[in-house]
Amino acid sequence: MTALDRELLERFADLIVNFGANVQPGQVVGVGAEPGKERLARAITGAAYRAGAKFVDVSYFDMHVKRERILHAPEDSLEYVPPWYGRRVLELGELHGARIGLTGAAAPGLLDDLDPVRAGRDQLPAVKEVAEVVNQQTTNWTAAPCPTPGWAALVHPELDPDAALARLWEQIAHVCRLDEPDPVAAWEQRMETLLSAAERLTERRFDAIRFRGPGTDLRVGLLPGSRWLAARFETVDGIVHRPNLPSEETFTAPDPERVDGVVRATRPLALGGTIIRGLEVRFEGGRAVSIGAETGADTLRTTVARDAGAARLGEVALVDRDGRIGALDTVFYDTLLDENAASHIAFGRAYGFSVDEPDRDRANLSEIHIDFMIGGDDVDVDGITGSGDEVPILRAGAWQP
Amino acid sequence: MTALDRELLERFADLIVNFGANVQPGQVVGVGAEPGKERLARAITGAAYRAGAKFVDVSYFDMHVKRERILHAPEDSLEYVPPWYGRRVLELGELHGARIGLTGAAAPGLLDDLDPVRAGRDQLPAVKEVAEVVNQQTTNWTAAPCPTPGWAALVHPELDPDAALARLWEQIAHVCRLDEPDPVAAWEQRMETLLSAAERLTERRFDAIRFRGPGTDLRVGLLPGSRWLAARFETVDGIVHRPNLPSEETFTAPDPERVDGVVRATRPLALGGTIIRGLEVRFEGGRAVSIGAETGADTLRTTVARDAGAARLGEVALVDRDGRIGALDTVFYDTLLDENAASHIAFGRAYGFSVDEPDRDRANLSEIHIDFMIGGDDVDVDGITGSGDEVPILRAGAWQP
Repeated sequence: MTALDRELLERFADLIVNFGANVQPGQVVGVGAEPGKERLARAITGAAYRAGAKFVDVSYFDMHVKRERILHAPEDSLEYVPPWYGRRVLELGELHGARIGLTGAAAPGLLDDLDPVRAGRDQLPAVKEVAEVVNQQTTNWTAAPCPTPGWAALVHPELDPDAALARLWEQIAHVCRLDEPDPVAAWEQRMETLLSAAERLTERRFDAIRFRGPGTDLRVGLLPGSRWLAARFETVDGIVHRPNLPSEETFTAPDPERVDGVVRATRPLALGGTIIRGLEVRFEGGRAVSIGAETGADTLRTTVARDAGAARLGEVALVDRDGRIGALDTVFYDTLLDENAASHIAFGRAYGFSVDEPDRDRANLSEIHIDFMIGGDDVDVDGITGSGDEVPILRAGAWQP
Repeated sequence: MTALDRELLERFADLIVNFGANVQPGQVVGVGAEPGKERLARAITGAAYRAGAKFVDVSYFDMHVKRERILHAPEDSLEYVPPWYGRRVLELGELHGARIGLTGAAAPGLLDDLDPVRAGRDQLPAVKEVAEVVNQQTTNWTAAPCPTPGWAALVHPELDPDAALARLWEQIAHVCRLDEPDPVAAWEQRMETLLSAAERLTERRFDAIRFRGPGTDLRVGLLPGSRWLAARFETVDGIVHRPNLPSEETFTAPDPERVDGVVRATRPLALGGTIIRGLEVRFEGGRAVSIGAETGADTLRTTVARDAGAARLGEVALVDRDGRIGALDTVFYDTLLDENAASHIAFGRAYGFSVDEPDRDRANLSEIHIDFMIGGDDVDVDGITGSGDEVPILRAGAWQP
């Protein structure tokens, strides 16, 4: 590791801890990482303690251990989760702690050769209690990407391993605005743009959003109370935090009963070790009634069969072309990055606080939340008013007046 | 990794899972490891699932994360442990699960340059709930060593890194009897010897054990109910397991009120990242009243000040010279190996089941259990009868008739 590498690592850890999660003195901090992400996890730990954290709990989830489970565990055990996995999350909520997750698969494609139905039944490292704690807004949290050699080889297969890792770090530094003299100021400025766009969308009270492009003609109904947000959240204690680093989206919760039409994903989707390419979905009455893909379709089908809400939408999000991720024209095989490159929708649970009362109970419920990308320069996005008028929102990725 | 390496790894994982912990179909298995021990942890996971485990939970404790804590955490927080650390252990007990721990520091000496008093206040990865679950005998468990490059460099500093790691693996394979055609049969035979020695010692009902050698003249009183055991335990459900791989000891719980004299450690002691060399302790009325050492004395002093029982003894153990570890004449800086090279005593909690009723409540209680080695060829061990006669037990490391 060069001095420059170390300096970048420290700057990134500092941004994640003090701007993203906004860790407060006295907080207990949970960090979710993988073997291969030790360097950044340790730098985050140091930054969190320097910010006054009471305790930092780094949990490394090992996908190779999960692989052994999918290979060998008894059939009827694959949905089992030991009670302490959920307790950790709930207790972080009870303690009003902070949570930091590091994305970017350290071992991408590790489950590709396994039975996709078995793989789909094991949702770890995701646990359902996270949704509960997120919706209670008791924890200040963030997710940020962590480059690893395995991930870099997936994203830049044309480069040798060292060059691939260096290129990925350079891209992550750019999209996280670490190459700015003052990354926090750059982020505050971008967040202002996204928050204004969200505010305008909320004021228009569209009845639905329509996506039209190659292979796509989808109408996503909104609830009367659907409120558009950007990724600047606030806890019940008033701690402002940025749940995604980077973030380029404005989003809300749709009406889970009113989604109709067909949609073709515009980027591959990495789902717990399986890569889903060429995804096409048909919706009727809010429900995904058919799912096709070139690879990984069975894993996704198993996942959306998990519970009553899993095949319905919990999020619709718009991304303009001024963001830094889409401009790189790189598929990252990581939802945090790819979802911020293009407009997207998500199977599963909604963020409850993106719907105003009295409609909040109508937002979708599920144990899962799976984003997939459906936007791009050749996908038009319109708002449909209560009287049926179509109002352009995005054309060639640009906000329309 | 060569095919031979992989074959050895699989054989070791199989011995740990099926002979050491004796994992049963349907059990939840907790595995404690460190970054750097992934290969063996994953092989153990595979072996446990093939044995029918319901779930294998591998927890990686990162000493570099602990280092950040000792460096930067608030002074009044260093004894804090998040509630889910203890819950994991208690719930493994409630589930009647299995537990496997991998010893051998992946980052030895990592805390050596830090404030020893702060380091001594943080007992992690040890948690006090382990003692409770061990004494309830609800889990079948084992601890086994896992070679890593860092540990190998500490044990064999004269060799280059690859040779050091290869040599350490070779030694671990030898002391774990993996170089035998049938390791399980070899272990069963050795355990029979140790169990017979334990049985003879129990029958003699000594009032005390006396150690005499260079710098040592220590009398360790026994309880009337002190029962000598070897490392073959049985759970409340009747699952026979071997809590240490390797094991060469017979041990019991002494009278925590009757330990007097001076003792000089015959091997260094590795205590949570700190290495304690040249340890000398004086006991009066069961309590360690003075602790001296060439290095690490303050860390040990802080540890034995932790609670009322921490400065008293919970174990006295005898090791003969027929064991494989002592014969290697290697200091491993790992308690599991070093304690089985020589007779030893332990600060802190007793194994309650090594004392028969009605004396069980007199066995020592504490959150800690720290073994240190006091035996060797030049240390004589005698049993003292109720009438004060001294009966030779070990001379030059050999059992006396």
